[in-house]
Amino acid sequence: VPRRIDADERRRDIAARAAALVARNGTEGLSFRSLAAAGGVSTTSITHYFADKKALLQSAYHAAVDQARVRVAELPGEDDPGRLAALCEAVLPLDPPRSDNWRTWLAFFGLAVSEPDMTQVQRRRVTGHRALLAEAVRAGQRLGTVHPGREAEREARALLALTHGIAVEAAFDPDDWPADRQRDLVARHVAGLARPE
Amino acid sequence: VPRRIDADERRRDIAARAAALVARNGTEGLSFRSLAAAGGVSTTSITHYFADKKALLQSAYHAAVDQARVRVAELPGEDDPGRLAALCEAVLPLDPPRSDNWRTWLAFFGLAVSEPDMTQVQRRRVTGHRALLAEAVRAGQRLGTVHPGREAEREARALLALTHGIAVEAAFDPDDWPADRQRDLVARHVAGLARPE
Repeated sequence: VPRRIDADERRRDIAARAAALVARNGTEGLSFRSLAAAGGVSTTSITHYFADKKALLQSAYHAAVDQARVRVAELPGEDDPGRLAALCEAVLPLDPPRSDNWRTWLAFFGLAVSEPDMTQVQRRRVTGHRALLAEAVRAGQRLGTVHPGREAEREARALLALTHGIAVEAAFDPDDWPADRQRDLVARHVAGLARPE
Repeated sequence: VPRRIDADERRRDIAARAAALVARNGTEGLSFRSLAAAGGVSTTSITHYFADKKALLQSAYHAAVDQARVRVAELPGEDDPGRLAALCEAVLPLDPPRSDNWRTWLAFFGLAVSEPDMTQVQRRRVTGHRALLAEAVRAGQRLGTVHPGREAEREARALLALTHGIAVEAAFDPDDWPADRQRDLVARHVAGLARPE
């Protein structure tokens, strides 16, 4: 049904534009009007696809999550010893697109504090990525890059927390966190997993 | 000049009440009116101390920072081997007051994305706390609890990023991050610093 596919694509395109606007101007800077003024889409088509600002905001958040998901899907598989670090790098603000994703997410943290459904989305994002990391830790144990005595769930939790901490700090202070420094800290942590705890 | 001291105290009290309201309802839930409605302060005294909502918001953010600063000031000194972990625990959401501080800060992340002066405040908070951690790492090296070959600035950076990552995840999902689990992850990381990298 090509028509439906076009509609989904159009909706996703608007959501991605909204995410980029939130990354620049925060959630308060997003409105049907400001999005149309940013170019590429008319208020008529925005109102066609989104009932209100809240629906647009949620789709913008999901657009940033989807962009990260695409990066994760393109990563090397479980038999690649680089997968563990790569899973972290997929969500680190190492380049402008990933920095924009983080600025969008941070803008939403402000809403998530008081909006239970946004909090739920945020929780699922954490537990989903943590599960992928735990699988990669276990794969590393099979490959010999992670010490067999280490507890996969706990190591995944620590590694994701480290990654999120770097990302949040780097999003506010990119000069303090050049890409090499972000990668180096993750690489050292991952290398340490080869030793017993 | 007791009169001035009273005024400063009154201003700080209002800011602390505003911070608590932001922790519950986000920055959009804070107004002169909603703060007065929450009790303990009249709109007249709020308008006496704060020019506009932005000034009130910034003071609320600083009130949460000041609460963390008081906890840090009460910590054991540099000759105490527990100082390194304690510096992290001072900013982890281990109990309701610290969880509230984080909910206030997260609410502000949304504003900081688009407000350069809030971004500056956020940067200073990170670099200030990181400097305290680096001092504690060097003290640990003198005390023998941190391996002498480790690089203090880098270890401080990693430890603060881990702490911030735990805190951000825990603020959105307290059930997933009971206090013991937060402490355990930091304690394991700190214990690992005794070994060579």
